[in-house]
Amino acid sequence: MRGDPFKPAARVANQRQDVWSIVNEAAVKSPVQPIVNMGQGFFGYNPPAFVVDAAKQALDRVECNQYSPTKGRPRLKKAIANSYSPFFGRTLDPEKEVTITTGANEGMLSAFMAFLEQGDEVIVFEPFFDQYISNIRLPGGEVVYVPLQPPEKGSTQTTSAAEWSLDMSKLEKAITDKTRMIVINSPHNPIGKVFSKQELQAIADLCVKHNIIILSDEVYDRLYYVPFTRVATLSPEVAELTLTVGSGGKNFYCTGWRVGWLIGPEHLIKHVSAAHTQICYSSVSPLQEATAIGFERADEEGFWEESKREMRQKMDLFNEVWDELGLPYSDPEGGYFVLVNMAKVKLPEDYIFPPHVAERPRDFKLSWFLIMEVGVAAIPPTEFFTDQNAHIVEDWLRFAVCKDDQVLETAKERLRGLKKYIQ
Amino acid sequence: MRGDPFKPAARVANQRQDVWSIVNEAAVKSPVQPIVNMGQGFFGYNPPAFVVDAAKQALDRVECNQYSPTKGRPRLKKAIANSYSPFFGRTLDPEKEVTITTGANEGMLSAFMAFLEQGDEVIVFEPFFDQYISNIRLPGGEVVYVPLQPPEKGSTQTTSAAEWSLDMSKLEKAITDKTRMIVINSPHNPIGKVFSKQELQAIADLCVKHNIIILSDEVYDRLYYVPFTRVATLSPEVAELTLTVGSGGKNFYCTGWRVGWLIGPEHLIKHVSAAHTQICYSSVSPLQEATAIGFERADEEGFWEESKREMRQKMDLFNEVWDELGLPYSDPEGGYFVLVNMAKVKLPEDYIFPPHVAERPRDFKLSWFLIMEVGVAAIPPTEFFTDQNAHIVEDWLRFAVCKDDQVLETAKERLRGLKKYIQ
Ligand SMILES: Cc1ncc(COP(=O)(O)O)c(C=O)c1O
Ligand SMILES: Cc1ncc(COP(=O)(O)O)c(C=O)c1O
Repeated sequence: MRGDPFKPAARVANQRQDVWSIVNEAAVKSPVQPIVNMGQGFFGYNPPAFVVDAAKQALDRVECNQYSPTKGRPRLKKAIANSYSPFFGRTLDPEKEVTITTGANEGMLSAFMAFLEQGDEVIVFEPFFDQYISNIRLPGGEVVYVPLQPPEKGSTQTTSAAEWSLDMSKLEKAITDKTRMIVINSPHNPIGKVFSKQELQAIADLCVKHNIIILSDEVYDRLYYVPFTRVATLSPEVAELTLTVGSGGKNFYCTGWRVGWLIGPEHLIKHVSAAHTQICYSSVSPLQEATAIGFERADEEGFWEESKREMRQKMDLFNEVWDELGLPYSDPEGGYFVLVNMAKVKLPEDYIFPPHVAERPRDFKLSWFLIMEVGVAAIPPTEFFTDQNAHIVEDWLRFAVCKDDQVLETAKERLRGLKKYIQ
Repeated sequence: MRGDPFKPAARVANQRQDVWSIVNEAAVKSPVQPIVNMGQGFFGYNPPAFVVDAAKQALDRVECNQYSPTKGRPRLKKAIANSYSPFFGRTLDPEKEVTITTGANEGMLSAFMAFLEQGDEVIVFEPFFDQYISNIRLPGGEVVYVPLQPPEKGSTQTTSAAEWSLDMSKLEKAITDKTRMIVINSPHNPIGKVFSKQELQAIADLCVKHNIIILSDEVYDRLYYVPFTRVATLSPEVAELTLTVGSGGKNFYCTGWRVGWLIGPEHLIKHVSAAHTQICYSSVSPLQEATAIGFERADEEGFWEESKREMRQKMDLFNEVWDELGLPYSDPEGGYFVLVNMAKVKLPEDYIFPPHVAERPRDFKLSWFLIMEVGVAAIPPTEFFTDQNAHIVEDWLRFAVCKDDQVLETAKERLRGLKKYIQ
């Protein structure tokens, strides 16, 4: 018999307005319409026809519209096992080593739910994909942050995303008796870094030594522009404690389909499946079927190569404008995000920001200013840091280039308007 | 630095094999193939053409394949508000009083996540939809059970599902200082009971008195064969503390689409949305769009009337076989499940059941026997009770009639084979 029957649980109470709604609301209010939205990482174009057609055909089949097995449709698990076995250098068992989830997001939540007890710690690098944090906290986990350091000359010259670096001694110090899991993300959002084999080996060695489960978020795994190593392939010992996360939405340009998966050893996967069953019961059937067909046909369609080439071209096309403007950026090694350093952009001193922007770091003001004055939306990356470390990226903005070329050209044209603010 | 790095969290450890996999595995092993599967409540036919076509058209639209807003697509929220406002007797605000989830299932989890702290209690009637239990426990809630009592003469004559009754004094005794929520399910799975206005009023009065949030699971809300009352409509005070859950999968014959929603006052819905964002981020876009169009067009298509009439016909068609056999059943007032009393069925004394069936109550043996000897799969309902109260339904089996008429005829023909076991 509580006084306030509507009091929410602590986990949902007092949420700060998130970056997505701040940026989207600003975008709606901008005098420049339609806004070019390079904020959220959704695609500005459709999945390939062979995948869309597969979805339409699935909709005609009775069993494709009804509940799928909780662990996923056998055809999709098999297609994923077949597609990934060559990368993993061994034959994956589709029934025991693959499980399907409602997007990578709910897949990661399922992994945390499967292994975290109240107070268990999970190491996360900053910047982080923001959903990790609530996903770790839901089952009672504690996040322990280790910041990645930006390229030393990142504010004065264009550098490679490879130069964002992890201080291994900081990582080692973050490990405690309670460390249960670590999240690695490569190719990285928002940095665009592809962790090198050496970097992954050093991290994995620590995990083997301390018995830490690795949750390797590889949702951008088909978009890399330098050699890409999957941490699970480093050694059998590492494979034993690694869960690899994938996303049909990212692979096939359909972020709204909510099909994801985890690959890993049976002794880990079975608990992830059990958690997923408790969370979502089962995942969307016709789009699982279409994703299966996507994997079955991607090679013969030359899709993976084309996808990577296309995205790299978009990246280069868009980044020309920063070269023109003399604004340095962190050239990505993978994925579809680019971080641009705006230290040289001088915001007018008398410019008025609304209070919910004014109280945030400079990148929020840069983002607001670009939306209102230039008509291009980008994401302020301090959102992906703890308050303590936010200063590391307060001069940067994140742009998503997974948009039509013509949209990228419009964005460039508008961004040229920044020239008068650059010193 | 744990000894066993792969130790799962308690919430997923030591799970008893669930009824779905026991029944499905038995179905695969049956000598009678193909088995007629009347176990799980998925449809044996496709969604109506106007809904399937809407899904196909959505797949051609770029924005329908990308992330939807976390609270759901505006078009779907609007279509639901429009469709439900007449039932609720007031104009629902689509932006504040409706939120979209990944099936009703994840919707209910989001509601529990939104309001339950460790140790908070939730009252659930037995029998219960099994997912409630893990959904309540994930955020740390405790389930408090109150059994529904079967019709007094249920084992000797066919009775109405209305006769399953709730002992109000038992309910009142179950309420403690820690009671935060109660789950009501009407039309009820597996009983087929539609709670009367008087019954709902009595429950709701207690909830208002004790400040208990009502989670009203109304996923079978378009399938009722007697007058149906929605608890939220009883009074403004009740509406203030009621969340109503719906399911596109159940409404439009597409359980694999995973589109659900909650309707309720803003002060509750906003926290449910926040929890949903943390769990799934957003729900499947093209099928949200198709569900929106389903709602927009259902009335002009005469779909709701037809849907109800068709299901009632299936129910009557199927239940003829029990009248023939002289086996009593509980005639449903809503939904697509029928509970049949098999007290009169004598299982051969020397019949050998596998250990995982032999150790369970008699309904598991009945289910196994029907699968193996008759070729029809049904669900043993003791799974939906605590061990302590399981005896209440150990002579009953649950059949789902949402199958093609011809499948129902095959089932009936096979079930006539039970005759020689009936005394
Ligand atoms: C690093 C990272 N992980 C996971 C996800 C979520 O993927 P999904 O849409 O499959 O849930 C995203 C989406 O932006 C991401 O950037
Ligand atoms: C009573 C009840 N509630 C909720 C659900 C879940 O609905 P959904 O498939 O939309 O998650 C079911 C499905 O069987 C059910 O019977």
